[in-house]
Amino acid sequence: MFKVNDNYLKLPGSYLFSTIGKKVKAYQEAHPDKEIIRLGIGDVTQPLAPVIIQALHKAVDEMGDAATFHGYAPDLGYEFLRNAIAKNDYADRGCQIGADEIFVSDGAKCDSGNIQEIFSVDNKIAVCDPVYPVYVDTNVMAGRTGVYDPSSETWSDVIYMPCTAENDFVPELPKETPDLIYLCFPNNPTGSAITKEQLQVWVDYANKVGAVIIYDAAYEAYISEENVPHSIYECQGARTCAIELRSFSKNAGFTGTRLGFTVVPKDLKSGEVSLHSLWARRHGTKYNGAPYIVQKAGEAVYSPEGKEQLRNQVAYYMNNARVIKEGLQEAGYTVAGGVNAPYIWLKTPDKMTSWEFFDFLLEKGNVVGTPGSGFGPSGEGYFRLTAFGSYENTVAALERIKKL
Amino acid sequence: MFKVNDNYLKLPGSYLFSTIGKKVKAYQEAHPDKEIIRLGIGDVTQPLAPVIIQALHKAVDEMGDAATFHGYAPDLGYEFLRNAIAKNDYADRGCQIGADEIFVSDGAKCDSGNIQEIFSVDNKIAVCDPVYPVYVDTNVMAGRTGVYDPSSETWSDVIYMPCTAENDFVPELPKETPDLIYLCFPNNPTGSAITKEQLQVWVDYANKVGAVIIYDAAYEAYISEENVPHSIYECQGARTCAIELRSFSKNAGFTGTRLGFTVVPKDLKSGEVSLHSLWARRHGTKYNGAPYIVQKAGEAVYSPEGKEQLRNQVAYYMNNARVIKEGLQEAGYTVAGGVNAPYIWLKTPDKMTSWEFFDFLLEKGNVVGTPGSGFGPSGEGYFRLTAFGSYENTVAALERIKKL
Repeated sequence: MFKVNDNYLKLPGSYLFSTIGKKVKAYQEAHPDKEIIRLGIGDVTQPLAPVIIQALHKAVDEMGDAATFHGYAPDLGYEFLRNAIAKNDYADRGCQIGADEIFVSDGAKCDSGNIQEIFSVDNKIAVCDPVYPVYVDTNVMAGRTGVYDPSSETWSDVIYMPCTAENDFVPELPKETPDLIYLCFPNNPTGSAITKEQLQVWVDYANKVGAVIIYDAAYEAYISEENVPHSIYECQGARTCAIELRSFSKNAGFTGTRLGFTVVPKDLKSGEVSLHSLWARRHGTKYNGAPYIVQKAGEAVYSPEGKEQLRNQVAYYMNNARVIKEGLQEAGYTVAGGVNAPYIWLKTPDKMTSWEFFDFLLEKGNVVGTPGSGFGPSGEGYFRLTAFGSYENTVAALERIKKL
Repeated sequence: MFKVNDNYLKLPGSYLFSTIGKKVKAYQEAHPDKEIIRLGIGDVTQPLAPVIIQALHKAVDEMGDAATFHGYAPDLGYEFLRNAIAKNDYADRGCQIGADEIFVSDGAKCDSGNIQEIFSVDNKIAVCDPVYPVYVDTNVMAGRTGVYDPSSETWSDVIYMPCTAENDFVPELPKETPDLIYLCFPNNPTGSAITKEQLQVWVDYANKVGAVIIYDAAYEAYISEENVPHSIYECQGARTCAIELRSFSKNAGFTGTRLGFTVVPKDLKSGEVSLHSLWARRHGTKYNGAPYIVQKAGEAVYSPEGKEQLRNQVAYYMNNARVIKEGLQEAGYTVAGGVNAPYIWLKTPDKMTSWEFFDFLLEKGNVVGTPGSGFGPSGEGYFRLTAFGSYENTVAALERIKKL
């Protein structure tokens, strides 16, 4: 008689954004006349840039001709894309990352969920609190997190590193030594950044204690300040302790087009075993490559026109971030983020819980955001708004919030 | 100090098709003047059908306009595609499968590798021998297969079900009771089919012993004979014991476009726990949907023009299968498959091992095939050729083989 993976049954509730989706759907069905503005899920709204659309059309035409048709992609991704990534995202920033250390995938969510597979189930993870739920949930599914305590909403075998106003949303080194450390900067959900000196402390620590940092840099395109690293490989020694996850979702609007990549340096080893070879084995066995047409679209992101068009797209969203941040401040809210990231992290008013504020904002303002507590216990009393809406909707949402 | 997933280290050698690729590359570099014909990997060569190209262009244009732009896809896939699948692949064949039991993905390889995650590591798997390597390798990675014996090339905790000329390549029910049974029909690599009566025996058996059948029907479009089921849900009782994997790679040429789906009926339960809810949770947590443009291309597969154009494409490949089968028979080979599947399974001549014949064919005929032993111990002494080449190359390859 077959048995299920019991670890799945330990997961409390459903995936955060599914819950939000259901609540919003129920409200909309009960109030069909209300026009809801969604600043909740981190989904982009601007169309793909013209140069990307051109590249897609060209690649589609190639797929329609036997002479230029493309079947299975190379395991690690097409060289044209991996070379463009190696040059633009790494060499041009002074990072030594080879094209053969880059694994093209269908997005950072999948990679951030799958990467834990190549590690022992005995390994102990450390996560920021609050944190993108996928890091913890996928470790729960793997049986790495121990017992859940519903009262504190924490797992017994997870090291939580609080990120609060007190530490400017950058965690301190944990007291207990972890094996895997998930860091995401610019941060989702708090919108905070880490300086190069602060990140160097983490790299030195990981090398010292023999931990691996899984560095999620999905939002690096939104960095506006000097001395904020775009890649962890800007730090000395990161090649022996860090895996980096990157996405095309937020810098190029690929949330519905699906493309990302993971960097596993060949210097990252456990004894004689290189993590690069394990991840290559997983990629080759359980994955079959991103679509050719999408990889061609990814290549266009690095063209001169692509860079110019996407700089404007990022600027559009960051202008929304400014509108949200300034609007909230005018309305008397305490806010963080929004300078190097497309997320604004606000303190809920009147000691409301995060979900109370979610309901309040949905019902009174018809604006959807994300409850901070959905990202972890230290997110309680906070709330996330995203800059990924249209400018018009963002302005309208802030007008509504100011009137509450 | 972090530790790796030791199960990965148990895997012998590399993924079969990576090994073949390296051997062919080495031979080509040593003999740059030789023109190699590849009938090895199951990759298609015909371009995407015109109606699919049209659908892709249209969807690309939608992505370039804010009014019709698509961001994150719904967790389970777009309804337009799931409805088309439910109607055409199931309702029209008399199978009761709801659109909400269909999970759209980026391909059957990923799904066939990931599906084991929702089951306990204690579960015992049964596989056909020979078999598509992904089923076994992904269970090795999960720690479900015990100890590897290099001499027999088998795992201690896997139930192998030999498929040989003696049983017409359809396995007998195993003596030891499995929890998970992987079946693939029409079969890769043997090209054999199963009748509806034969498959009903398996469904009845699985329901009786409480096993789940993971049914890989990636090649159903190639079925030419009556009484060969296109879906396991044509059998009575399959809703309580079977998961079905389907692909757009072979019926529509999507190997480089990436689209597939998995059916998990809501009646499939372990006690009160539905496998549908577990797979939905996995999908929602570790996956982020197939690209919108690719899902629109998938929809076009089910249009009247799409069906017509793809019927011709399948006929093109099946004509190649006939050329291979008849050519090999003329040359004195013993062959199976090629009637309901795009694979021809031949017995190696002169008691050569599968890899000896691989080298012989590569070096003397400059033709690439796949060694049967790469699919499992009972594949030793066999060799797989695929019908996915161009007609011209297929004819040329057979001319070369006849001269050996």
